[in-house]
Amino acid sequence: MRDAYHEELDSIGDGLVEMARLVGSAIGRATTAILDADLKLAEAVIAGDAKVDDLQRDLEARAIALLARQQPVATDLRIVVTSLRMSADLERSGDLAQHVAKLARLRFPETAVPRDLHSTVLEMGQLAQRLMAKAGEVLITKDVDLALQLEQDDDAMDLLHRALFQHLMDDRWQHGIETAVDVTLLGRYYERFADHAVSVAKRVVYLVTGEHADELGHSAAQGDAAEAQ
Amino acid sequence: MRDAYHEELDSIGDGLVEMARLVGSAIGRATTAILDADLKLAEAVIAGDAKVDDLQRDLEARAIALLARQQPVATDLRIVVTSLRMSADLERSGDLAQHVAKLARLRFPETAVPRDLHSTVLEMGQLAQRLMAKAGEVLITKDVDLALQLEQDDDAMDLLHRALFQHLMDDRWQHGIETAVDVTLLGRYYERFADHAVSVAKRVVYLVTGEHADELGHSAAQGDAAEAQ
Repeated sequence: MRDAYHEELDSIGDGLVEMARLVGSAIGRATTAILDADLKLAEAVIAGDAKVDDLQRDLEARAIALLARQQPVATDLRIVVTSLRMSADLERSGDLAQHVAKLARLRFPETAVPRDLHSTVLEMGQLAQRLMAKAGEVLITKDVDLALQLEQDDDAMDLLHRALFQHLMDDRWQHGIETAVDVTLLGRYYERFADHAVSVAKRVVYLVTGEHADELGHSAAQGDAAEAQ
Repeated sequence: MRDAYHEELDSIGDGLVEMARLVGSAIGRATTAILDADLKLAEAVIAGDAKVDDLQRDLEARAIALLARQQPVATDLRIVVTSLRMSADLERSGDLAQHVAKLARLRFPETAVPRDLHSTVLEMGQLAQRLMAKAGEVLITKDVDLALQLEQDDDAMDLLHRALFQHLMDDRWQHGIETAVDVTLLGRYYERFADHAVSVAKRVVYLVTGEHADELGHSAAQGDAAEAQ
């Protein structure tokens, strides 16, 4: 009985790792799609999000079934409840990658990102992908040190976001309002994606140590774009 | 034993209703703060979000304690798990109201919203507040018809969001890039706030009927700003 139980728990963990892998890949591909104005790639990312949604639904159903059947307490209960939260973080990350891809599709055959911002957006996309890769690794290894590293990476994301805004506000900005709007939203998508990756890692810290890294990741969400301007 | 159990369940429900009330009030006051460039009000909204966060933490702790102690199954289990999700929606709504207030603070003594967009932003703020008031009412009454009404209200929000973007994209826009960025983010905050209110209502529908209004509110989240442009 206990063995079946831990197998189920493991399979929920595997589901989370798979979700992290998928959304990490999605944000990387969405970034390529928007920088290269690659419609096919954008469409693939948009369609691919259904898989992430399916995984989440599946994972939730299994978590609830496990709660009902096995009625875990203490640490085990905490793991299941926290898994539900992490799956919501990862599902939302998938939505954000999809938003980037939708913006690529909306502007095709143009690119939403002017050339002088390519490198900043590329860095944000790569950093977002690395953050999610680390979050996936933290899910597997439960490595608290690695989890705490994600906060530093998130600081780097905030700097990039700030640089993006500074560029927008520069008097020499000559790409018009539509592009300014696109770039503003894009910056927000990457920032929120990073927040969710950090949140997943923090929830692992909470599971391992019983202590909130700070406030369950909410403070990260509060480093809002308005402040980054 | 069962009575104590249902009392605990009720108190979780009360916590959700109180959260909805607080964040509904917060988005209303944040809207006033940003339209009137009222720094004191903005500060009050920003500080007030801590209360929402506390309520969420408290609610989560009680939900987890209830799961551990009472080990509910079937409908009762579904209620507790869904309450956890709704509390996350409401906490996030509070963050978004806080973002609006922070933008008001950032631009003080100026207002972030140009005069010709006041009425649109006011409408978005009022609609957001009404949506959350309805979500709170749905939490109390479990009224499925009222819950489904929220989707129509959300369509109205999408229209307002679209109008905001059209105004931004108009050749006659003369408020510069910074204001365009502010208005873009503001539109996104209201839209997301509305999504979370709709999500709460949909989760109630799921609890009452056992059927997802659609996909647990994700489709609402996918009506993303990029598409609204």
